[in-house]
Amino acid sequence: MIQRVKNIFNNSKKKVDSIIIKNASAPFIDDNFFYLTGLEQGMFEGSCALLHPDGTLDILVSELEAKTKKEYSELLKQLISTSKIIGVNASGLSYQDYKTLTEILPQGVFVDVSDGFFRTRLIKDEQEIQHVKHACVIADDTMAGISDILSEGISEYELAAEINYSLQSLGAEKPAFDTISSFGKNTAEPHYGHGDTRLGKGDFILCDFGACLKRYNSDITRTFIFGRASDKQREMYDIVLQAQQIAFELIKPGIFAGDVHYAVKSFIDSTKFKGRFIHSTGHSLGLAVHDGLGFTPDNMMELQENMILTVEPGIYLPGFGGVRIEDDILIQKDGIELLTKSSRVFTELE
Amino acid sequence: MIQRVKNIFNNSKKKVDSIIIKNASAPFIDDNFFYLTGLEQGMFEGSCALLHPDGTLDILVSELEAKTKKEYSELLKQLISTSKIIGVNASGLSYQDYKTLTEILPQGVFVDVSDGFFRTRLIKDEQEIQHVKHACVIADDTMAGISDILSEGISEYELAAEINYSLQSLGAEKPAFDTISSFGKNTAEPHYGHGDTRLGKGDFILCDFGACLKRYNSDITRTFIFGRASDKQREMYDIVLQAQQIAFELIKPGIFAGDVHYAVKSFIDSTKFKGRFIHSTGHSLGLAVHDGLGFTPDNMMELQENMILTVEPGIYLPGFGGVRIEDDILIQKDGIELLTKSSRVFTELE
Repeated sequence: MIQRVKNIFNNSKKKVDSIIIKNASAPFIDDNFFYLTGLEQGMFEGSCALLHPDGTLDILVSELEAKTKKEYSELLKQLISTSKIIGVNASGLSYQDYKTLTEILPQGVFVDVSDGFFRTRLIKDEQEIQHVKHACVIADDTMAGISDILSEGISEYELAAEINYSLQSLGAEKPAFDTISSFGKNTAEPHYGHGDTRLGKGDFILCDFGACLKRYNSDITRTFIFGRASDKQREMYDIVLQAQQIAFELIKPGIFAGDVHYAVKSFIDSTKFKGRFIHSTGHSLGLAVHDGLGFTPDNMMELQENMILTVEPGIYLPGFGGVRIEDDILIQKDGIELLTKSSRVFTELE
Repeated sequence: MIQRVKNIFNNSKKKVDSIIIKNASAPFIDDNFFYLTGLEQGMFEGSCALLHPDGTLDILVSELEAKTKKEYSELLKQLISTSKIIGVNASGLSYQDYKTLTEILPQGVFVDVSDGFFRTRLIKDEQEIQHVKHACVIADDTMAGISDILSEGISEYELAAEINYSLQSLGAEKPAFDTISSFGKNTAEPHYGHGDTRLGKGDFILCDFGACLKRYNSDITRTFIFGRASDKQREMYDIVLQAQQIAFELIKPGIFAGDVHYAVKSFIDSTKFKGRFIHSTGHSLGLAVHDGLGFTPDNMMELQENMILTVEPGIYLPGFGGVRIEDDILIQKDGIELLTKSSRVFTELE
């Protein structure tokens, strides 16, 4: 953890005497608190971590549980009183807590060092990689069981409940995000969750979920056909699979993130499904499901070793359906390591 | 929704021309966005709602999906350009978004109207009450199934997976929060989640969970004994149950929230378990699991009709175990309506 703290100071362009992380009430909890303390359970509402340039840190637990508000303020003031320039993570701090900090420490100069958090979190260390890999194994094992769950007439939300049950039975603390299980036409909406639509013959089945384990996440999507596929369904699938392969072959250190998206989008736009890839090609993954960087248009961030991202091209035809294939990858010196290993072979489920 | 918007203006002590709600990235999403738009699905990262005193509102969807950052800023500027004094919800707005707003609208005066949100959200309208009631039915039905799930050797996390599966099979979108299922000594820690401890004879079993449905939450706790109870276990249970009844009889409009906690704590402190009730007596419940108010020490907020709160006394003996009984109540003109209806009879499960 000492190295993580040091990296945050070093990776920010701004020089500060100390850095403060302050959790508000749920859901406004800064996951950097867990990144730096290594704590894996509990909410830590109202808690606070004070980071020092030598890599050490102080933790103040919530005023709600341990102390009155006034005692808490006094303690914080004491801890930080020698600092003049204090860094904050502006994207993880509520405006209210910012105001409170300026009242507790009127002499302090508060500076946004979110660039330090951002750059540090993008590069995963060995422990983080192991956590994500474990979360990927659980996602893969859950995906492998889906064909046994499906039967004609099952509803989307029943499938979601089964997926979540499997994730947790296999050791996940919770699903990484609201599980998407959509059937038929609903698969054409990339951000659809699940409803009471029931599965019928010839439907697309799109399952997009992940495991959250020790606060680290996986994120996988597979699209199947229930029964016999039409030529059009098969064609969509093949093109999405090829698009993903193009990304896999391109990704390595030094490539711009935006160029990966451009390559994938250009390929899909060169087919009859032009214009039907309507989101970015992927996102950084870790303590957060959207962990910073993305394969987004015009993104000039250079890829680096030990980044973990999703690669998830898709084709969406409103009123017909959609196909998305999503895997998690670790960037290595010469290319990628695939962290999710579920089969990507076109599958007609009976 | 028009009335909700109007109430927020009326319930804030500060007079403003308009109010802006701005979601950041997950998890920094202000649930007031959903409170005021009625939207039930989707994350709406980066989206924004602009409220007007006549009860109308404008919604700007995320810059990520629909527009470039510049287009989004221009649109926001246009919408808000006639406002001089602009309200924000300081506790639901990130400091980064606050900074961005002041850059987009340098002529604007930004004022914290979180008091308006807080007061409005405390009093539930008919639709909100129906949603919470539905979430309570799902929690009760799940609780009713727990005795069938339990068997010697089941692990805490397996039980949590079963509870979550039941919640979702019964129609919940997700668990209201990380389900707590603890056995034996672990029940002595009020905020324990679940681990790999396995159930043995004579153990306490503490289950604390809720359903989230249409974004509204329930929250229930029951404590059982696996096998035959000791006298001490039974005594702890009886006292917690009596403590809850004391709260039920006290709660009605006009009573101070802190007095409810005082009555419960005083009663427990008058028994041999003095000092072993170590958290507050309950919290407001709604779109958020901790929805504003609490039965906390010295809280001078007066209870009002149509507030919904949990009532959850407990006794915790480190190294031995804990008992908590939690129900959700709706405050009515003359007292309470119990929204969770699971049996509170002392139960030895075989």
